[in-house]
Amino acid sequence: MIKKILIANRGEIAVRIVRACSELGITSVAIYTDADRHALHVKKADKAYNIGSDPVQGYLNAHNIVNLAVASGCDALHPGYGFLSENPMLAEICARRGIKFIGPNAEVIRMMGDKIEARKAMIKAGIPVIPGSEHNLENVEEARTLANSIGYPVMLKATNGGGGRGIRRCDSDAELLKNFDRVVSEAGKAFGKPEVFLEKCVVNPKHIEVQVMADTHGNTIHLFERDCSIQRRNQKLIEIAPSPQLTEAQRQYIGKLAVRAARAVGYTNAGTVEFLLDSDNQFYFMEMNTRLQVEHTITETITGVDIVQEQIRIAAGYPLQYKQEDVHYRGFAMEFRINAEDPKNGFLPSFGRITRYYAPGGPGVRTDAAMYSGYVIPPYYDSMCAKLTVWNLSWESVMERGRRALNDMVVYGVKTTIPYYLEILKNPDFRSGRFNTSFVDTHPELINYAVRQPPEMIAAAISAAIAAHNGL
Amino acid sequence: MIKKILIANRGEIAVRIVRACSELGITSVAIYTDADRHALHVKKADKAYNIGSDPVQGYLNAHNIVNLAVASGCDALHPGYGFLSENPMLAEICARRGIKFIGPNAEVIRMMGDKIEARKAMIKAGIPVIPGSEHNLENVEEARTLANSIGYPVMLKATNGGGGRGIRRCDSDAELLKNFDRVVSEAGKAFGKPEVFLEKCVVNPKHIEVQVMADTHGNTIHLFERDCSIQRRNQKLIEIAPSPQLTEAQRQYIGKLAVRAARAVGYTNAGTVEFLLDSDNQFYFMEMNTRLQVEHTITETITGVDIVQEQIRIAAGYPLQYKQEDVHYRGFAMEFRINAEDPKNGFLPSFGRITRYYAPGGPGVRTDAAMYSGYVIPPYYDSMCAKLTVWNLSWESVMERGRRALNDMVVYGVKTTIPYYLEILKNPDFRSGRFNTSFVDTHPELINYAVRQPPEMIAAAISAAIAAHNGL
Repeated sequence: MIKKILIANRGEIAVRIVRACSELGITSVAIYTDADRHALHVKKADKAYNIGSDPVQGYLNAHNIVNLAVASGCDALHPGYGFLSENPMLAEICARRGIKFIGPNAEVIRMMGDKIEARKAMIKAGIPVIPGSEHNLENVEEARTLANSIGYPVMLKATNGGGGRGIRRCDSDAELLKNFDRVVSEAGKAFGKPEVFLEKCVVNPKHIEVQVMADTHGNTIHLFERDCSIQRRNQKLIEIAPSPQLTEAQRQYIGKLAVRAARAVGYTNAGTVEFLLDSDNQFYFMEMNTRLQVEHTITETITGVDIVQEQIRIAAGYPLQYKQEDVHYRGFAMEFRINAEDPKNGFLPSFGRITRYYAPGGPGVRTDAAMYSGYVIPPYYDSMCAKLTVWNLSWESVMERGRRALNDMVVYGVKTTIPYYLEILKNPDFRSGRFNTSFVDTHPELINYAVRQPPEMIAAAISAAIAAHNGL
Repeated sequence: MIKKILIANRGEIAVRIVRACSELGITSVAIYTDADRHALHVKKADKAYNIGSDPVQGYLNAHNIVNLAVASGCDALHPGYGFLSENPMLAEICARRGIKFIGPNAEVIRMMGDKIEARKAMIKAGIPVIPGSEHNLENVEEARTLANSIGYPVMLKATNGGGGRGIRRCDSDAELLKNFDRVVSEAGKAFGKPEVFLEKCVVNPKHIEVQVMADTHGNTIHLFERDCSIQRRNQKLIEIAPSPQLTEAQRQYIGKLAVRAARAVGYTNAGTVEFLLDSDNQFYFMEMNTRLQVEHTITETITGVDIVQEQIRIAAGYPLQYKQEDVHYRGFAMEFRINAEDPKNGFLPSFGRITRYYAPGGPGVRTDAAMYSGYVIPPYYDSMCAKLTVWNLSWESVMERGRRALNDMVVYGVKTTIPYYLEILKNPDFRSGRFNTSFVDTHPELINYAVRQPPEMIAAAISAAIAAHNGL
C-alpha cells in the first residue's frame, strides 16, 4: 500500500484528502504558500511544507512539487481538482520520478483535455456528441462556414478548456465575428493554448454527469449520475444526486454510456463524464474531467463509496472494491457550494476574516470546510470556502434538510451564497425538480432576499443607537 | 400537523429536536434555567423562555412546563430523554391540558417504568425474561430466599429505576444483606419509590436493544438493533448499529420479538426494547425505554429514517411513513459519547470553558453537539457535551472512520473521553467485534494513553521555558 502522499492542492479538497489518508493509515503531506500558512489543510495534515511566497505560483510549479514529494519520502501524489490536476505534465513528471500519480495516466489526461481529440474518441466509441468541428478552427471564416452549416446558436469553445471557462455562445454571424478573437485570446491566457472549436449550442440543456471509477485491472464501474444544472456563468452552485429529472431507464442508460466512454479511452482512476440532456431527452457527451470533482461528496453520500480512498487504492494497484452490481444508491444528496461572495453585488468575492464559523450538525449533514473562526480568507484563490452536503430519503425531504442545514450553518464576517440558496430552495421551479442550466438566469429575482444581520451585529447596532440617543 | 413544539429538555437533544422541527416547518420553543442562558439549544430554537434560577428544578417542574407550553401557544411537547421523559405525570398533564405529548401514553410509561409490571406483561406476551421476582421484595429475608432458589449471582434492582441506575450485583447472601438497604435507599432517592426486586445475574451479557416505532393506527415496526455493550458502570459509552455480533437470523428474531413486545402493551411512538444476550446466545428482555434514546442517531444513520420527525408525525396522528419491508439498513454506524470527563481520574467530570471547539467533517461523520468555542459547560448536568456518529460500509472501515473523526474533532479547555475511545478502537478484543458488557472493566489498561497537549498549550509551555531559561 501507499505510505505517504503529497497533496498538491489547498483548501477543502486538501483537507478531504488528508481525511482519506488518515482513515487508510497513510501519512499526509500538505504544501502551502505564505498566504496559506494559517489554512486548515496545513493544520490537518501530518506534515506541511512551505513552497514559497507567491500565493498561487507555488501550487502550479509541477517540478518543485514533485521534487518535494521525492525529498519528503512520499510515494504518491494527489492533485485534487483545479491547479495542476488536469495538467498531463504533472502526471508525467510523477511517473518519471517514481511517484504514483493518483489519477489517470498522462496520455488520457492529454487526450481528454483536448476537446477535439476527446470528441473523436467518443465518436469512435459510439457515444453521441454534439454536432460540431472535427478539428481546431483555422480562422473565423472557417468558423462561420461551419456555424452556418450546423445552424445557430453555436458554442465557441477553447479546445483545451474545461471547468466552464473559455466558452461563448454565438447566435449569429455577427456574434461569432465579435467573439472569435475573444475566445482565442481567453484560451491562450487561461489554458496556455489558443486553439478553439465550435459546437451546436444545445439550448437550455440539463447538465448531467456520471462518476466513473476504473482500476488498472480492466474493471470499470459507474457510481450513478449528478445533476449540476444549477449553474451561474457555467460555474456550478448546487449539485444533486441522483438527478430528480431522470427516469430509472435513463439512469441505467447514461451510466452504461459513461462506462463505455471510460473504457474506450483506457481510463483509470476516478473521472467524470459530463453530458448535456436536451429538451428532446437526447444525451450528448460534453467533456470528461480526468480528476476528482468538487461535487464528488453527493455521490459518496448516496452510494456510501469513499471515492478518494478508492482513488488511492487504485493508484496503489488494488482492484476496485466494488463490482457494478454491488453499488446501490439510496435517497437524494444535495451539495451547496458555500462561496464567500455577495450575490447581491454580482457575486463579487467577499474575502476577509471569518468572525464566527459553526458547522451545522444533526442527521444527514456533511460539511467539507476550509475555514474556522478567526480564519482570514485570502483574496488569491477561488471563493468557495466550504461545501455543505445534505442527504435524505426523498426529494422533498432533502430540500427541507438543505434549508435547515443552511440556516443552521454560521458564517459571520464575510458575505456568502447561503441566503441565495435559501431562496432557490423556496422556488417552485426548483422544487418541482424540473430545471435546466437556464434556471439561475431566468430567476434573477432570487437575489432579492432580505439581508439578515448576525445577532452580535444587531446588538452592536442597538448599543450604538442607544449611545447616540443618550448623547454619549 | 403540529405547529409549535415546546422542548422540555436541554443540551444536544434539545438541539436535535429543534432541527427536526425546523425541517418540518414547526416553530420550536426552548426552555432554560439561568445556568443555561448561553446554551446552544437556546440559540438554535425559534423562541426560548427562562424557567427559573435553579439550574435543574426548572427542567423537572411538569406543571410549570406545561403551563408555559399552553401560554406560549404550543400544541405539542417533546420530552427528550432524561428529566421528565419517563415520568407518566408529564404525559398526563399534557393530555389534560390539550398538549400533544410526543411519546407513548401515560399508562404505558407507568407500566414499563414499573419493572415488575413490565416483566409480567412480557411473560404474558411470550417474551423471554430473566428468572427473578414476580413482585416487589417485602424484605431482605424474602430476597435471600428467592436468591437462593434462583442461584447467585443476582442483580438487585430499583423497580422504578432505569438508565442503568439503582442496580447492584450480589454474589452471595452476605453481599445481598449488605446491598439490600443500599439499593432501597438509592431507589427512593433517585426515583422517588423505594421498591426493589431481583433477577438472576446474566454474567457478562451483551447489551442488544431494538428501536421500535408504533403509530396510533395499529402499525408497529422495528428499525433493527443497537449493540450497547461498551459501557462503564451501566452507562453506555460507544454504541454500534447493527451489532457486529449478531447473525442475520438473530437480527430478524430480535426485531420480531421487540415488535411483539411493543404490540403486547399497546405501545405508540418511539421506544426501545432492551435485551441481554448471554454466552449461550439466549436473549432476555431487560427493560423498555419509553422515550427517544441518546443513541438513536446510529439507527437513523443506517436506516435513513429520521426518528425524531417520525415521533412528531405519530404524535400528530399520522400513520408511520414506512412499513417494515420498506426499512433497510446499510453499513455500520458507531456513536461515541463525548463526555467532559477525565478518564485518567476515574472519569471525573471536567467542566469549564471550551477554549476551542471544531466539529469533524468529511464523509460519514455526524455531530450532535451542545457546545461551541467559548461555551462554559455548567457543572449541574450530565457530562455528555456532544455525540459523534460515524458511518461506513463495513465494520473495519467504520472503526477507521471513527478513529479519524475523533482525531479530527477539536475540544480544548476540558478533558474528554476522546483519547480513551481512540484506545478502545485500537484494542484487538474490540476490533474483533466480539465483546460484552465486561469490556471496559476487563481492559483497565486502556486509560494509560499519553496525554496530548493542544498545540497552543505546547507553544505556551515552550515560551515559558525559554523565558525561564533567559531569566525573564
